[in-house]
Formats: sequence, C-alpha cells, structure tokens
Amino acid sequence: MTKARGRRIGVVDTTFARFDMGAAAVDELRKASKPSDRLRIDRVVVPGIKDLPVAAKNLLDAGCDLVIACGMVGGAEVDRQCALVADIGLQQAQLLAGKPILGVAVYEQEAKDERELAWLMDRRTREHAANAYQMLYRPEALLAKAGTGQRQGFADAGPIRLEG
Amino acid sequence: MTKARGRRIGVVDTTFARFDMGAAAVDELRKASKPSDRLRIDRVVVPGIKDLPVAAKNLLDAGCDLVIACGMVGGAEVDRQCALVADIGLQQAQLLAGKPILGVAVYEQEAKDERELAWLMDRRTREHAANAYQMLYRPEALLAKAGTGQRQGFADAGPIRLEG
Amino acid sequence: MTKARGRRIGVVDTTFARFDMGAAAVDELRKASKPSDRLRIDRVVVPGIKDLPVAAKNLLDAGCDLVIACGMVGGAEVDRQCALVADIGLQQAQLLAGKPILGVAVYEQEAKDERELAWLMDRRTREHAANAYQMLYRPEALLAKAGTGQRQGFADAGPIRLEG
Amino acid sequence: MTKARGRRIGVVDTTFARFDMGAAAVDELRKASKPSDRLRIDRVVVPGIKDLPVAAKNLLDAGCDLVIACGMVGGAEVDRQCALVADIGLQQAQLLAGKPILGVAVYEQEAKDERELAWLMDRRTREHAANAYQMLYRPEALLAKAGTGQRQGFADAGPIRLEG
Amino acid sequence: MTKARGRRIGVVDTTFARFDMGAAAVDELRKASKPSDRLRIDRVVVPGIKDLPVAAKNLLDAGCDLVIACGMVGGAEVDRQCALVADIGLQQAQLLAGKPILGVAVYEQEAKDERELAWLMDRRTREHAANAYQMLYRPEALLAKAGTGQRQGFADAGPIRLEG
Repeated sequence: MTKARGRRIGVVDTTFARFDMGAAAVDELRKASKPSDRLRIDRVVVPGIKDLPVAAKNLLDAGCDLVIACGMVGGAEVDRQCALVADIGLQQAQLLAGKPILGVAVYEQEAKDERELAWLMDRRTREHAANAYQMLYRPEALLAKAGTGQRQGFADAGPIRLEG
Repeated sequence: MTKARGRRIGVVDTTFARFDMGAAAVDELRKASKPSDRLRIDRVVVPGIKDLPVAAKNLLDAGCDLVIACGMVGGAEVDRQCALVADIGLQQAQLLAGKPILGVAVYEQEAKDERELAWLMDRRTREHAANAYQMLYRPEALLAKAGTGQRQGFADAGPIRLEG
Repeated sequence: MTKARGRRIGVVDTTFARFDMGAAAVDELRKASKPSDRLRIDRVVVPGIKDLPVAAKNLLDAGCDLVIACGMVGGAEVDRQCALVADIGLQQAQLLAGKPILGVAVYEQEAKDERELAWLMDRRTREHAANAYQMLYRPEALLAKAGTGQRQGFADAGPIRLEG
Repeated sequence: MTKARGRRIGVVDTTFARFDMGAAAVDELRKASKPSDRLRIDRVVVPGIKDLPVAAKNLLDAGCDLVIACGMVGGAEVDRQCALVADIGLQQAQLLAGKPILGVAVYEQEAKDERELAWLMDRRTREHAANAYQMLYRPEALLAKAGTGQRQGFADAGPIRLEG
Repeated sequence: MTKARGRRIGVVDTTFARFDMGAAAVDELRKASKPSDRLRIDRVVVPGIKDLPVAAKNLLDAGCDLVIACGMVGGAEVDRQCALVADIGLQQAQLLAGKPILGVAVYEQEAKDERELAWLMDRRTREHAANAYQMLYRPEALLAKAGTGQRQGFADAGPIRLEG
C-alpha cells in the first residue's frame, strides 16, 4: 500500500440511515485530496446495512482500491444482530477481494438526541474518509498515529505510557 | 448496476411463514415493472429460513441478477438464532455469487396481533420488492433516497439534519 | 430442481443423539418413495453435531443431491453455542457444494419428558425427510404450501390472511 | 470413508491448556491401533485455541486424513467467545480441506476441582481419539452407536425409545 | 513448520489502541532473533481491529510466513462484538492464506487502571511475539510447553496432573 496516484475509492451507503453519510464521505474525500492525486470516487446506495457487503465487494472487484461502507444501526436487539451480520459479511468481502473496506457504523443510542446523532454521523464518516485517503496515499501518517488512541466521531482516547 | 432491460429476479420463500410472502413479492414486481422491462421472475419455495441461502445462491448462479429471500422469524430465542444463521448464510451466498440478495425478515413479535402481522408481512415484502426493482432498473432512485431514513413495512423514520 | 428420477439423498446423524434419527429418516424416505423414483440413500454416522457439516458436504461432493443432517441439542448454554456453530457450518457446506442440506435439530428442552422427546425426534425427522423427498421429486408440492405455517414435529401454525 | 490401511491422523493442541491433551490423544491412538493399521500420527502444538484451525487445516492439506484438535476453555465470557471463534474456524477448516477435524473442548467450569478437571481432559481426549480411530478404520462401529446418547468424558446419556 | 532461516513476520496494529503494541512486537522480535535467523519484519498500521484481518492476509499473501495482529478492545458491548467480528475475520484470513496469524487482544477491563493497562498491552504483545518467533524458528519449544497452562500477560496458570 505505497503512496500512489490515480486511485479509486468506493462509497456505499444506505437509504435506511437518517443522514446522508455517503455525501459526507464524498465531500471529505474531495477536500482531503489534491488534483494531482487523481482520486476517482464511485458511489452506490443500497437499502440497508446487510446490503453493504456485496455492493462493496462488487466495487472492489470493479477496480476500487478501497471502499467506505456507511451505515446507521438502530437501538433494538434485532438491529444489533443486523449489524453483526453486516460486519461478518464485510470481513468476508474484504478477504475475498483482498482489499480493505472501512466500515462506518453509527449506533442510534450513541447520541443523546437527533441533533447530536446527525453531528456524529457526519463527523465519524468524515474521519473515516480521512483515514481512507491516508491508507491509500499516506500510509506513513497512520504509522505515526499507531497506538495513540484515535477515535472517529467523539474525542480521541489518547495514548497511555509505561512507567518510566 | 446500470439501467438495463431483460433482467431476472428470483424469489425464494418458505412453507414455515404464515403468509405467502413470495406471492406478494411476485405481485409487486409485476406491478412495478413495465412490459418493456422484460423482467423475468423465478420462484422457489423451501421449508424454512435456513434453507433460503443455498436456494438463493443457486438462483443467482442460474442467471438471476438479484434474489428476494423472504422469511418469518418466530418469537423464541432459538428462532432468533436461526435468523442469525440464515442471515450469515445469505451474506456468504451474495459474496460467492457476486450479486445481491435482498432479505425480507418479519419477526412475529413486531406485530401486536395476527391481523397486523399479515399486513406487515405483505407490506414489507412489497417495499423490498420495489427496492429490488429499483436496484436493477432505476439505481438513481435509490441514490435520491440516500440517508433519508427509509423503512420497509412500518412508517419511514425520515431524515435528520445538521445544525445550520 | 426439476422433477427427476434416480436421485441420491444422504443422511448424516450422530452417536450423541439419544434417538436413532438417521434410521427414522431412512425409513421415511423408503416409505415416501416409489420404486420408479430409483432413490438411493447413503448414510453416515458421526460423533456429534459439529461433525455433521463436513460429513454432509462430503456426501454432496460424492454425488448426493441433498443431505438430511440430524442432531439433538442439549439444554446447557454451551450446547446452544455448539448448535450455532454446527448451523453456521451447515450453511457454508451447502453454499460450497451448491446443494441443499436440510438440518433436523431437536432441542432437549422442547419436550417435557423423555417419552415426548423420543416422539418429537422421530416425528420431526420424518417430516423433514418428507420435505427432502418433495424438494427433489415434487417441488410443486412445496410451492402449494408456501406461507402456510408448516412446522416439523409439533402442530402446524397455519396461515394468516390480510383483512379483506 | 471405507476401512483402510496406512492412514494419517494429526493431533493439534495448545500450550494454554493445563493438561497435555495432545499426549493423551497420541497415547490412545497408539493403544487403539494395531501395527497392521500402519497409522501415522503427526503432532503440532500452538499457543491457544484460536490457533488450532489453521494448524489443523495445514495438517489436512499436508496429507492427514483426520485431525484431532484439543483445547481447554476458561471460565470467563471472553473465553467462551474465543471458543466460539475457534469453533467457527474449525468448521471452515474442515469444509475447505474436505476432511474431518474432531474438536475436543473441555470447559474449566465443567469440573468441580483441578483433580476432576485433569481427569476430564484426559478422559474426553481419549474418547475422542477412539472415535477418530473408528471414523477412519471402523465406520461401522459408529453406525452401530447411532442415536445411543454417547458422551465423551462424563457418563453416556443413553438411548430413549418410542412408546411401543 | 520446520526450523528455517530467512523468514518474514508481519506486524499489524491500530491507531485505535492506546499503546503502541506494534512497536513492542517489533522490538521483542528483534531481541528474540539472531542475525543468522535473517528475520525480516513488515509492519502495517490500520485504524481499528476490524481492519486487521485483510491487512494481515495481504501481508501473508505478499510473502510473510506469520502475522502478529494486535488490538485493544474497549469495555462496551459493541466493542466486544467488534472483537468477535475481527476474530472471525482473522480465522478466515488464516485459512484462506494457509498461514498463522497470532492475535494479540487486550480488553480494557482486564486492567485496573491505565498504568496496568499499558503494562499488560506491552507484556502480552511481547509474549505473543516470542511465541511467533518460536513457531517459525523453534517449534520444538512449543511442543515442550504443551498443556502447561501458559498465559500471555498475566501469570501462567500452570499444569495440572492426573491422580497418580
């Protein structure tokens, strides 16, 4: 995963989510990239999170180097089980395609109200999009942040250190 | 997944379900499609939801572009575990076939009585069938609904927005 | 899965189960089939339910058109986890082989005593065996029962209908 | 899986377990087999149970006809989750290799003290090893025990029968 | 897995973790190996634990003989589910690549404070790195520790023995 020009990133999101995570991902990728990166973005929208894995894999198989898969998870037990299933599918999709899929999941109960939920869905998606850009174009930036407690959305946890 | 004519959709449902979800899916697909779409529908019925994945994959391998897999989930813990297993299988089936399977799951406890349950099974199946049609023939319609809180069956949750 | 003659059904069951489910399956298949069906039955016995998937897949790969995999599940949490693992394996086995495996699972706690348990293990196995026969030789019989609330073992749940 | 001479059985166990299950398996296989069986045993030791699946699959791919995979499971929730993961991996390993892996799992909480735990780990491993031998050399012995409530370690549950 | 010279070990860790586990793994591998081992180490950093499997598999496919995959797991239920998903992915990655991935997982709640957490993350990573070295260069050392209750991080549990 060396620095390279002319890469393709896929963005898949859902009609189920209550915020346009896909648009946020595309916007952030546009902001993060320079014209010389020649970054191409492909976007596909599916109904729900269990539809993300095959759509993401198909984008990878069609030439994307990485896919950002965005979804919102409801608060009921059945929703968490859906998230588990989607996540297992995303693992398999990545392994079969041999390329990474960055999953962006926001759980409804993480936010105290709709206002914070919209903020969180936007923010977390953008931070994952920034990670996606770095994975393809600046892997050394991720190496520099190894073990530093980075979070996407809410505040970073920060690093802890061994007793001197 | 560009707009195309002459596509095939598979419908798989079960003898376990208490409502004929497969018939509802086929009926809705007939209503949604125009003769010029030349949509072909293949239907297979299996005993229970754990029999859906291989049947769906076989339909995809036989030429279907998408499969709608319909099932009802009972209220006991073992039923939810069956649903989890079926869902994991549906993920794998999609990834191996490289084509989407839209899962339509109705949980018995979602409805307050048999009357509402029948309504929900019919309604949710039809909304998923409409999605299936759009995925193959009108992907731009899904893009237009990205992040708008669409639900299948009960009322949509609707979109939320960032503070201005 | 068209009507055909000369099909092979595999039966796999366990030494763990307290009732000879495999013998019940074979007996029912013999009763359901006519000589002109030229049905061939292969039987393999393994120690426990987690040994069913690979044995079933090997039967499918060796030429069986369908496998009936029978197991009893104990009442402890670890037993339910074993059943989940076996079921996930059975999904994968079917998808890799491209042919169906009908799983027959009886949970010890479903029955109120050993007498009912034996009855249930026998009855459920036979009803799944009848389904297996229909899947290969009479798929139209399954279509006729779509959405009618069929159950294997205890009484059928029956169909529900939309308000007129 | 017909009776055959010159078979290979792999044994994989862990440094995590508190009892040398691998040695017990090898010893029992030696006792069960006759020189004319020309049974070859390969043994590999890995750190923990999640390392068993790939080691077992590699043994199968290298020519073993069956692998016995032995592990001890601790009492915490995270340990049970590890066991689930290892078991899912063992399923996949078998299906990809097309040959059986007999998993020998002992849960710490099954025994009332260390003395019983050691006994159980030894006993269960040996009974699984005996099964492994029969699966390769005497499958008819397993058929004779179908549905008889066999257990590995503690007492057999025994068969139940239908009312006459 | 015979003794060999000139092997490659991959190290993958995350920006999510609050301690630089990857650096600890690399440092320990350097200490454990001799120049004559000609050990080569490749390191990749990804955002979170669900990104480990495909990164690890890609390292194996690119020539690594073994990968050490390091991650920290938070205390919430959703974090444990993430760990389960990552672990299932790591199993699949190993089986598809046919080579081992040693997973190093530290759960935040295992430690009583940040000081102990940093110590545990360092210590456990180093003990897994030592295992990785032995798996490639000294498999006989693992055989000698079979069934002796080894732990990574906290104190070993030690072996138990049969009544004489």
